[in-house]
Amino acid sequence: MYSLAIHGGAGTIRRETMTPAIEAGFHAGLRTALLAGHAVLARGGSAMDAVTAAVMALEDDPQFNAGRGAVYTSAGTHEMDAAVMDGRDRAAGAVAGILGPLHPVLAARAVMEHSEHVLLIGPGALAFCRANGVEFTNAAHFHTERRWQALQAELARRTAAAADTRSDADRHGTVGAVACDAAGNLAAATSTGGMTGKLPGRVGDSPVIGAGTWADNATCAISATGHGEFFIRHAVAHEIASRMRFLGEGVAEAAEKVVAELGALGGSGGLIAVDAAGNVALPFNCDGMYRGRIGADGRALTAIYREAPAAHG
Amino acid sequence: MYSLAIHGGAGTIRRETMTPAIEAGFHAGLRTALLAGHAVLARGGSAMDAVTAAVMALEDDPQFNAGRGAVYTSAGTHEMDAAVMDGRDRAAGAVAGILGPLHPVLAARAVMEHSEHVLLIGPGALAFCRANGVEFTNAAHFHTERRWQALQAELARRTAAAADTRSDADRHGTVGAVACDAAGNLAAATSTGGMTGKLPGRVGDSPVIGAGTWADNATCAISATGHGEFFIRHAVAHEIASRMRFLGEGVAEAAEKVVAELGALGGSGGLIAVDAAGNVALPFNCDGMYRGRIGADGRALTAIYREAPAAHG
Repeated sequence: MYSLAIHGGAGTIRRETMTPAIEAGFHAGLRTALLAGHAVLARGGSAMDAVTAAVMALEDDPQFNAGRGAVYTSAGTHEMDAAVMDGRDRAAGAVAGILGPLHPVLAARAVMEHSEHVLLIGPGALAFCRANGVEFTNAAHFHTERRWQALQAELARRTAAAADTRSDADRHGTVGAVACDAAGNLAAATSTGGMTGKLPGRVGDSPVIGAGTWADNATCAISATGHGEFFIRHAVAHEIASRMRFLGEGVAEAAEKVVAELGALGGSGGLIAVDAAGNVALPFNCDGMYRGRIGADGRALTAIYREAPAAHG
Repeated sequence: MYSLAIHGGAGTIRRETMTPAIEAGFHAGLRTALLAGHAVLARGGSAMDAVTAAVMALEDDPQFNAGRGAVYTSAGTHEMDAAVMDGRDRAAGAVAGILGPLHPVLAARAVMEHSEHVLLIGPGALAFCRANGVEFTNAAHFHTERRWQALQAELARRTAAAADTRSDADRHGTVGAVACDAAGNLAAATSTGGMTGKLPGRVGDSPVIGAGTWADNATCAISATGHGEFFIRHAVAHEIASRMRFLGEGVAEAAEKVVAELGALGGSGGLIAVDAAGNVALPFNCDGMYRGRIGADGRALTAIYREAPAAHG
């Protein structure tokens, strides 16, 4: 049975900065992405095409930290990372430190489909994208006043050496999608702008295959979000797949255990996971995770805090 | 019991291009690196210091594809990657796409020790290194006539659309070290120039934690070499650690199984592994791997082809 799950970042989400209108905006953005992915699956499309469509929708939405809406580095620039992985043959593509492609997830997919490589970075990645028909846009497309002000506030905080009181979802965020299609094939996609005020050149877990992104039909597809360095040091996505293969755990059990272990070590975040039977898990060890799921019934279920995903609109 | 293992690349090593003098040169280079790491362990130094010292020696030796002796990209430039990981707490540091630091392994170590990040790339990584006292050298230091001619031959081959008859060790190589110190702590380090004629921006498995580099006192330390894209797509290093933890396999059994599996899929290469009891495994699925090991007795044992490592000089 086909199914799709998405996330739009996880962490401390401060309720006092939320209004019903802002919450409704997030639910609507998640819903749009779920429906974009569902449309692919419903017409018999592949899991890879479904996660690509869902992540493109999230990249187009300035509420989320990927594509349009990406956060700024400390230098006031954008550096985006993305990855895709196909569970059929573990083909994978990833990019890091790029600015230009309208949809970074399509840059990652071009690497998977049109190169013999998995990971391309920086100017070399951009040259490859240009040569392979990836659509570019200008830097202004990625400017959002909200992210710019977030950078100014962060730089001022550092100058004042004040405590960091931002919500995690403001500091770092990621978007991602995992899907199981009607043929039982799995795929994962992740895309991010990184952390507000990050050191130029810093790369988190999103484009690190086995950390923030993984897909293997034999186990699961995973897309993670959170404090990326912890996810890399614990090879989180591959750890879940390993528990399923070697310990016989189900996708929910394995995903929840790994996310809980990570939380105990100080690694804040969450992830979305799906297995080849279409079972979905959406664990996180922090206040909330922008997330959603949709199955063959076409009902888009979304959530922000600890509540069960529900229909919103 | 402390022990250290190193590699200097794996793959098809064409005996017809070998002479006794060339072979002796490789054995001598491996021996120098083994003794450098052993000196650290013998005086009670840490596994991390030992692998750093061994990899620095390999980076200094133009016979190996890392640091001085790094291969050229298709653009005639150098782009180096390196990583370190400490088994005590899984602290890790990595750099990708850098040119400047005399010892790329020290750049990776600076990221681990002086930043809150794991992976820094390109100009941002270099700026970080400069700000943190990493020693730089000029680009001429990395020029070697042998690598330059290898690039010219590869570019000519592409122009002629001729078959690729290079040995794997000429096309891509990597250096690495793993160690278990007297306290039973593990560490791993890997450094590479990548593949001759690689697309600028291409990053292989070396700096991908969980793929080409891993260390966790609970299981093993790993440094891999070979066709990096396969190592990433199979999360090779973390896969070995997972088999040890979840299946109870020993380090040699787990490492040999994973390397054989990879070979069956077309992923040529090998790796070095050590566990917290000092047991060492040096499996590879291709013709040869420049490799060596040394224990508390201080005897440097080295090998190139399928023969057992032995004392050379």
